[in-house]
Amino acid sequence: MKKTLVGVMGAGDKATEIDKQNAYEVGKLIAQEKWVLLSGGRNVGVMDEVNKGAKELGGITIGILPNITNEQTSSYVDIPILTGMGSARNSINVLSSDVIIAIGMGAGTASEIALALKAKKHVLLLSQNEVSIAFFKKIGGEYMHIVSTPLEAIATVKELL
Amino acid sequence: MKKTLVGVMGAGDKATEIDKQNAYEVGKLIAQEKWVLLSGGRNVGVMDEVNKGAKELGGITIGILPNITNEQTSSYVDIPILTGMGSARNSINVLSSDVIIAIGMGAGTASEIALALKAKKHVLLLSQNEVSIAFFKKIGGEYMHIVSTPLEAIATVKELL
Amino acid sequence: MKKTLVGVMGAGDKATEIDKQNAYEVGKLIAQEKWVLLSGGRNVGVMDEVNKGAKELGGITIGILPNITNEQTSSYVDIPILTGMGSARNSINVLSSDVIIAIGMGAGTASEIALALKAKKHVLLLSQNEVSIAFFKKIGGEYMHIVSTPLEAIATVKELL
Amino acid sequence: MKKTLVGVMGAGDKATEIDKQNAYEVGKLIAQEKWVLLSGGRNVGVMDEVNKGAKELGGITIGILPNITNEQTSSYVDIPILTGMGSARNSINVLSSDVIIAIGMGAGTASEIALALKAKKHVLLLSQNEVSIAFFKKIGGEYMHIVSTPLEAIATVKELL
Repeated sequence: MKKTLVGVMGAGDKATEIDKQNAYEVGKLIAQEKWVLLSGGRNVGVMDEVNKGAKELGGITIGILPNITNEQTSSYVDIPILTGMGSARNSINVLSSDVIIAIGMGAGTASEIALALKAKKHVLLLSQNEVSIAFFKKIGGEYMHIVSTPLEAIATVKELL
Repeated sequence: MKKTLVGVMGAGDKATEIDKQNAYEVGKLIAQEKWVLLSGGRNVGVMDEVNKGAKELGGITIGILPNITNEQTSSYVDIPILTGMGSARNSINVLSSDVIIAIGMGAGTASEIALALKAKKHVLLLSQNEVSIAFFKKIGGEYMHIVSTPLEAIATVKELL
Repeated sequence: MKKTLVGVMGAGDKATEIDKQNAYEVGKLIAQEKWVLLSGGRNVGVMDEVNKGAKELGGITIGILPNITNEQTSSYVDIPILTGMGSARNSINVLSSDVIIAIGMGAGTASEIALALKAKKHVLLLSQNEVSIAFFKKIGGEYMHIVSTPLEAIATVKELL
Repeated sequence: MKKTLVGVMGAGDKATEIDKQNAYEVGKLIAQEKWVLLSGGRNVGVMDEVNKGAKELGGITIGILPNITNEQTSSYVDIPILTGMGSARNSINVLSSDVIIAIGMGAGTASEIALALKAKKHVLLLSQNEVSIAFFKKIGGEYMHIVSTPLEAIATVKELL
């Protein structure tokens, strides 16, 4: 029977310390809820931290990788899906997630939020950046949710599921 | 020998009248420059108008379609590439374009701009919307160019090529 | 830490009774070995039966679906990855699998075997059909393994891992 | 208005001399018919030769590349579509072609023929190899056509269009 999949999207190399700390907390909370974590799966930034958090509490972690090998896969990913498609895999990430949590901002993350909104998926943005918030509220309408903490993110996911 | 491909991205059903008029003008100007027009290829909004403009001046038009058939393909597209991949094809659009012109804004267009910036492609945004401009300047840096008219767009593409 | 993923490929609507029975047995054996089952994930034929077998013995089941919704997903799939890419997802199936077992034959299955061989993945073909065996031996060389029973398939996977 | 797209699929590095010669002839004949040539677009084997033939007679050539840059693109391709998707692009090749001509055989070519048959596209196989012919006749039925010469291939495409 289908498990609940929560997607967490966020920057790799350019993730801030706050983004990484938030990602680690979100990962732990997702595992606590017995949800499956789905992410971009790489061994850097938000992707690595969220998987690390989830595994520390025994969660199941799926990574949808851009590559054809596991050289850049987070060691905290149980099940790497190797798409070999680069950023085209961003579309798979959002289609496969029941709800998406975006942590921080960058070009890759922005593309995932936009693709999710295009697919009419609910997206939570864990960010304090007013420019990003203003933009995604404008294009996302009711599907866009702004949250301030990992705990608020999880509470909002629960309401939406 | 490889031709110059200029990608034009923009909304379908939700395109405004101004966006559509701009798209039509941009299409004509691209054809005048003997560049190949690459677009999302559907028969609505910016996609339809830009192809219409290009064909009126004898341009070559390529559409990268999300579908597996041509039922929703613009009648002004010479060469439809049927990806059958939905929005995952947005990644192909930006990788294949030498420069990208975005007209107006919506979730699909935002994903294409973001994917283009992620791939370090130059993007021109033909829009007056300050929220969109602020956001993409923030995530795009030097790769993001804001333009006000079709003529300014073409002049900027010439400089970039 | 990465789990072992064994991909099972085979026909949907056109699967024979023998193919379906083999798929069910292979699914059970994969679960017994604590490998993760990866398949095309649809609710018909080999795909449905292999997931059913795996779930009966408590395995983890991943489906890489061609669709954007779960309407055609096997109820025995734990984690459906919705690619929205039609048959382009066949490439993901083979790249993500450590070893591939093909059961029976059809156009979709043939494409997956061929893509796997192209990617230099080991493929086991569980079939008695001489025409299919001759063809894939010819194009697959050392990467192609012919097996006659589910038990022989699992034994061969063990040797290859 | 949509042009007729004829897809030509075949091996890269492993193409035989006869395959390459056939590809060159088929390219010339496609250009003579004013059809657009669609291929995998790389600068080796059947892909390079068919584009060379088409350009010598002034045809339009589209390449659907696996890569994200043009480093491996045939210099005879006018319009390279950079998918960045590796072999997943094989699905795009067949969906976009009105008819497919396969020249020679290898794992990549076999995947394209199989994907084409799965999508119910007509495929012509220009080959004398009895093992390949037997296999694809078996899985392709009425959609599979065996031809012996470039001229016979073009005559058959004309009948099918």
